[in-house]
Amino acid sequence: MNTPDTTRFRLTVHYDGTAFHGWQVQPDHPTVQGAIEQVLLRITEAPRRVIGSGRTDTGVHATGQVASVDLPSKWTAPELRKSLNALLPRGIWIEQVVETDPGFHPRFDARRRSYLYRIGTEPAANSPRHRRFCWPLEAELDLEAMERAASVLPGEHSFAAFAKAGQPHLGEICTVHEVGWTRWECGIGFTVTANRFLHHMVRYLVGTLVDIGVGRRPESEIARMLDGGPDTPVTSPPAPPEGLFLTRVRYEDSL
Amino acid sequence: MNTPDTTRFRLTVHYDGTAFHGWQVQPDHPTVQGAIEQVLLRITEAPRRVIGSGRTDTGVHATGQVASVDLPSKWTAPELRKSLNALLPRGIWIEQVVETDPGFHPRFDARRRSYLYRIGTEPAANSPRHRRFCWPLEAELDLEAMERAASVLPGEHSFAAFAKAGQPHLGEICTVHEVGWTRWECGIGFTVTANRFLHHMVRYLVGTLVDIGVGRRPESEIARMLDGGPDTPVTSPPAPPEGLFLTRVRYEDSL
Repeated sequence: MNTPDTTRFRLTVHYDGTAFHGWQVQPDHPTVQGAIEQVLLRITEAPRRVIGSGRTDTGVHATGQVASVDLPSKWTAPELRKSLNALLPRGIWIEQVVETDPGFHPRFDARRRSYLYRIGTEPAANSPRHRRFCWPLEAELDLEAMERAASVLPGEHSFAAFAKAGQPHLGEICTVHEVGWTRWECGIGFTVTANRFLHHMVRYLVGTLVDIGVGRRPESEIARMLDGGPDTPVTSPPAPPEGLFLTRVRYEDSL
Repeated sequence: MNTPDTTRFRLTVHYDGTAFHGWQVQPDHPTVQGAIEQVLLRITEAPRRVIGSGRTDTGVHATGQVASVDLPSKWTAPELRKSLNALLPRGIWIEQVVETDPGFHPRFDARRRSYLYRIGTEPAANSPRHRRFCWPLEAELDLEAMERAASVLPGEHSFAAFAKAGQPHLGEICTVHEVGWTRWECGIGFTVTANRFLHHMVRYLVGTLVDIGVGRRPESEIARMLDGGPDTPVTSPPAPPEGLFLTRVRYEDSL
């Protein structure tokens, strides 16, 4: 809650997940939230709690994570951005800082989240310039089969089959707004936007889509995994974290 | 020298220079040559000397370093490539291994070397996906002035003004075959091919070209720095290593 001399700031955060045990603060492990809070402690000389739009796993990247923090109103957005970027490790970059509504909550107010998963299909995807940021595959992929398989995702479905087993059940229904395929320098990218995501959901989706792309399983199985049922096939193992980026979080003001 | 049961292999090596104290083996510091030799010791059970086309500085990357190593002839090129890539750290990738002439020497036989220097001109160049691999600048650059200034480089010149002071003088004459400008996702790239380069030469060139691009010095000064003389201006500080890539080394068979 803001007092009259407190301002809530909204941060757009990029990070290279390689060196972090995910977003969320953990004892004894470097995390993105923890690194930002450490710098805030140093520059504001008091402990500050940073709230993110959601967790990301160990090794997962972001080019559009959204977070908030409350600071004394003497801070301005440009000063805060400059001070953070000067002291944060190079694996974290604050793209934008804006003053926001005192009631703004990055997680509860988020309406849509978008992820990109980058698959390397060219040998050069293994080059160190790309290797941290993609999943290099040796195999030939049938992209049309993958596109057809993914085309059943939009809409409201239970994604229980695509969630890490044993996670606390806060409901399994997600509304997928959009899926898409893009190209990058050394391969393809799968993009997906939904109101929410279950734990590891994008990685299970991509792992299964790749198995369809290499012909290891029929493209009809994605449809059979949605909404469950007695014959629901088991998904493929999750794709590795280094190909995954949280690219955007949208709120009422940016839908 | 190869004995009848020894094969000389030629390796094309990519690396992310961030984690290495350059190419060349040093006691107590991780280097690219050292990392490759460690893996060779492990897989061939004997010490092996890897010879590179030349050193690269701490923090400088490569997408086309060339190296050689002699191994017992029971090794094949595909096996060697696979074993190296399985055990090398992720910051190093062996793109290609071929059997080569027993007299081939990566350094002495090299005819042309090419470098790329990536400058970030978009704010997103600071994003961790790009930050390790470019020099992000806040300033506006006059690209036409930089192109005009660089256009005097091709040909045979003394580059003494662009060499790190105090280095052993093995001669200062280089023949620049080609310079060029390219675009990348978040900025521009300067490419230069020459028969040889002095220590820090590309970084001094880029540092000076950027000062010309931001208007801090006149574009005529590059020409005045070439070939020395009583009024030779001092170069600008070298551009940082993280923007620099050794992209290609050419031999008689690939000119």
